[in-house]
Amino acid sequence: MVVAVETQNSDSSESKDSAVKSSTGQLIIIGGAEDKEGDCTILREFVRRAGGREARIVIMTVATSLPGEVGHDYRYIFENLGAELVDIVDTERREDGDNPKDLEVIDNATGVFFTGGDQSRITELLKDSEIDKLLHKKFAQGLVIAGTSAGAAMMSEMMIVEGDSTTHPTIDSVVLEPGMGFLPNVAIDQHFSQRGRIGRFVSALMQQSVPLGFGIDENTAIAVNGDEVDIVGEGSVTIVDVSNISHSNLDQSLQDEALAICGAKLHILTYGYRFNLKQRECIARSARQ
Amino acid sequence: MVVAVETQNSDSSESKDSAVKSSTGQLIIIGGAEDKEGDCTILREFVRRAGGREARIVIMTVATSLPGEVGHDYRYIFENLGAELVDIVDTERREDGDNPKDLEVIDNATGVFFTGGDQSRITELLKDSEIDKLLHKKFAQGLVIAGTSAGAAMMSEMMIVEGDSTTHPTIDSVVLEPGMGFLPNVAIDQHFSQRGRIGRFVSALMQQSVPLGFGIDENTAIAVNGDEVDIVGEGSVTIVDVSNISHSNLDQSLQDEALAICGAKLHILTYGYRFNLKQRECIARSARQ
Repeated sequence: MVVAVETQNSDSSESKDSAVKSSTGQLIIIGGAEDKEGDCTILREFVRRAGGREARIVIMTVATSLPGEVGHDYRYIFENLGAELVDIVDTERREDGDNPKDLEVIDNATGVFFTGGDQSRITELLKDSEIDKLLHKKFAQGLVIAGTSAGAAMMSEMMIVEGDSTTHPTIDSVVLEPGMGFLPNVAIDQHFSQRGRIGRFVSALMQQSVPLGFGIDENTAIAVNGDEVDIVGEGSVTIVDVSNISHSNLDQSLQDEALAICGAKLHILTYGYRFNLKQRECIARSARQ
Repeated sequence: MVVAVETQNSDSSESKDSAVKSSTGQLIIIGGAEDKEGDCTILREFVRRAGGREARIVIMTVATSLPGEVGHDYRYIFENLGAELVDIVDTERREDGDNPKDLEVIDNATGVFFTGGDQSRITELLKDSEIDKLLHKKFAQGLVIAGTSAGAAMMSEMMIVEGDSTTHPTIDSVVLEPGMGFLPNVAIDQHFSQRGRIGRFVSALMQQSVPLGFGIDENTAIAVNGDEVDIVGEGSVTIVDVSNISHSNLDQSLQDEALAICGAKLHILTYGYRFNLKQRECIARSARQ
């Protein structure tokens, strides 16, 4: 059952069609604080999609200031879940992004996991490096890339690097920088409900000129496979579709003035729901089997 | 310029037409923490709509546990703004709701202002009292009724009396009780962006079976006059329209499970924007003059 059928118009069909251009890999984009001690639903989903008991996982600790500790914890989880091989790649300096040994490890991986930390570290240390190029190449060939918190933020073409929580949208309620661009044409925010981020999220979405935004709760993820986005985990994913808005005041607003938007579409989806990036439609749980 | 024209369908036209049935008064519904020391934009708008320098204001301190102090502060502001007469009515006991002297004061008023505090106190002490009946009668005749925070919450037929902030929507993320019912067929939440309330707000909206919800920021208000809703103040008003949603899981969800909703409409409006309750359309600032 397709539950939200929307008339396509010529203005938005181009961006929709290019939403997942040329990528055949999968993304698991996690809103932070995923369960690591119970069922590990989200991390389990990552390992399953990365090959299950034949998965060869690389943990990228570039975002965190505690790479040893964080890497060790995830290695323990992924090994316990039965992955065949778990490696850690830490890139503390810019030149580490071209390290041949690390490139070899990543080239052998079926799944790459970016930990949380500071998303600016990911782009500062990796963007345009050999590792970056290899990740995009392998993603196009089927690699599964997961990221939590900072590792989620970096997935889009532009990412939020700073922002005010629990505020209404204004231009300066958010600071954007280029991300790693694994999922183009969307805006992403994480720790969404838990930190009251809809204001900064709508500001980021409006300023990025992308048709769709995903606000992902803690212990919740979107699993992206081509045009299909599955919701996994405990919380909800708030999807705002601005492709057919009737009005916004973005162009007329000064930095600190409240932003207005009329006629956006709002979906709040939970575990088991699916969303189609191309049609921009929700697919209910009952229609999935 | 009407900026969001939506096709009406027979399912929702009934509720829309009855949205402001038989009321000719005005409501100023304030999201709390309105400016009291600067321009007093919202309180000024209330006094202006209540008659300006000929306004006869009654401050209702029923919600607060500090009626003397709170009443005094608002009296000072309304007198400074030039209202002709400012009285305070405090109803600490249930029998105070039928007090003839207070009824006379209210009967003489052109504007009634409900302070913040605890919205349950408003309904416990006033609902179905003579004061309640008089307020509804005079509202139908043109009385301007304002309320901030708890005084805003009570405006709708059902009101939020408890709720979790910064959480995704679940059935038990909010507790609802009957409100004073000045504005039927809507859901209201206040301190909206500042307390990260969209989760509890969407839960309340879905459980009330009303077509529209208004999430009102601090120092921000909606001024309702018939079908016309003007946005006043510094922040934004988040309007969620669920009249044409394609799907929700409300009926299938247990108390603590995440609620899903597909195809709601989202407007975020700011100072100078107008919203039409009957057409459920935004009217941009530029089209107002």
